Amino acid sequence: MTMRIGCVLFDGFETLDMFGPVELFGMHEAAFEMRLVAEAPGPVRSAQGWQAVAEAGFDDLAQYDILLVPGGAGTRREVDNPALLGWLKAQAEAARFITSVCTGSALLARAGLLDGKRATSNKRAFDWVTQTGPRVDWVYHARWVEDGRFWTSSGVSAGMDMTLALIAHLLGRPAAENAADWAEYTWHRDADHDPFATRDRA
Amino acid sequence: MTMRIGCVLFDGFETLDMFGPVELFGMHEAAFEMRLVAEAPGPVRSAQGWQAVAEAGFDDLAQYDILLVPGGAGTRREVDNPALLGWLKAQAEAARFITSVCTGSALLARAGLLDGKRATSNKRAFDWVTQTGPRVDWVYHARWVEDGRFWTSSGVSAGMDMTLALIAHLLGRPAAENAADWAEYTWHRDADHDPFATRDRA
Repeated sequence: MTMRIGCVLFDGFETLDMFGPVELFGMHEAAFEMRLVAEAPGPVRSAQGWQAVAEAGFDDLAQYDILLVPGGAGTRREVDNPALLGWLKAQAEAARFITSVCTGSALLARAGLLDGKRATSNKRAFDWVTQTGPRVDWVYHARWVEDGRFWTSSGVSAGMDMTLALIAHLLGRPAAENAADWAEYTWHRDADHDPFATRDRA
Repeated sequence: MTMRIGCVLFDGFETLDMFGPVELFGMHEAAFEMRLVAEAPGPVRSAQGWQAVAEAGFDDLAQYDILLVPGGAGTRREVDNPALLGWLKAQAEAARFITSVCTGSALLARAGLLDGKRATSNKRAFDWVTQTGPRVDWVYHARWVEDGRFWTSSGVSAGMDMTLALIAHLLGRPAAENAADWAEYTWHRDADHDPFATRDRA
């Protein structure tokens, strides 16, 4: 059965947060059907300046099986956007997995979805992100964190490692190994190994 | 001085080939100005199904300092597209660096730009790619290959390692280290180390 992935875009989303995972999910097109979703359909500008086309708006009634929420400079604004937070909350009620990359976890936190749950984020933005969710059990040393349906990753390229773990979880380890191999990507398989976690803090 | 990067899109381009490098160049926005370019401006569909917006067409007269040419399933068609090959040849006359990721090197090869030069490509498509350039000195074991102005990388995520090496070449090693660190990306710094080169051949 094909799983539908809702890939959430907003102005100032971080390029690789979104399109690293899209590349890897895309290796298994029979299993995953991806759609870019934003508040309104049409071009959405990334933090790097180029534009991706959102195929659907938040008024679309589709229910996604997996949500993919990127970070990026735009999250600083989107944490106060009720349209985005409301859509995330509504989708999360029935979604099988809610995933985020980098500061995307701030959006999940502000939507109240991570309360009482373990989660992580980018190490260079960690202090800001943790303030967006005072009732979240933030994990500093982690490449990514799995807590039930909620999978959150550390910064940018960590999203690819989390995605491969999710592919392994859903389709089996060989499917994830094959995606990594095709992309000639050295998969960091250990969720707890985080070489970037010691830079800014003691 | 800002360097202009022409990021070449065509139907069926590989997502991460393009947007891994875009992410990393984007960490130094004072140094690099990126523009997505295609045969015609407007939405261009990736091999993974979503669309990026090309800001300029090949009839735009801008000269780019750096060309970034991705691979993807679409290269099988584009090797016979005189509009694309002609644009690459014209741009390459004055560009400081001509870079490709994955099967993007087949496009450079068919444009005649790699004749007599060392180059590499994706290991799973190597036999096809080498046929597109019989006068190219193809290097099988390489994460990426530098030959003067022509930098070609192996598959997909190898483009990020090549990009970091180019950033180091242009802006100094700390600038590349900083981009990798911000993206929480473990940079594979050795161009000759290719763990994916031994899978399909003896």
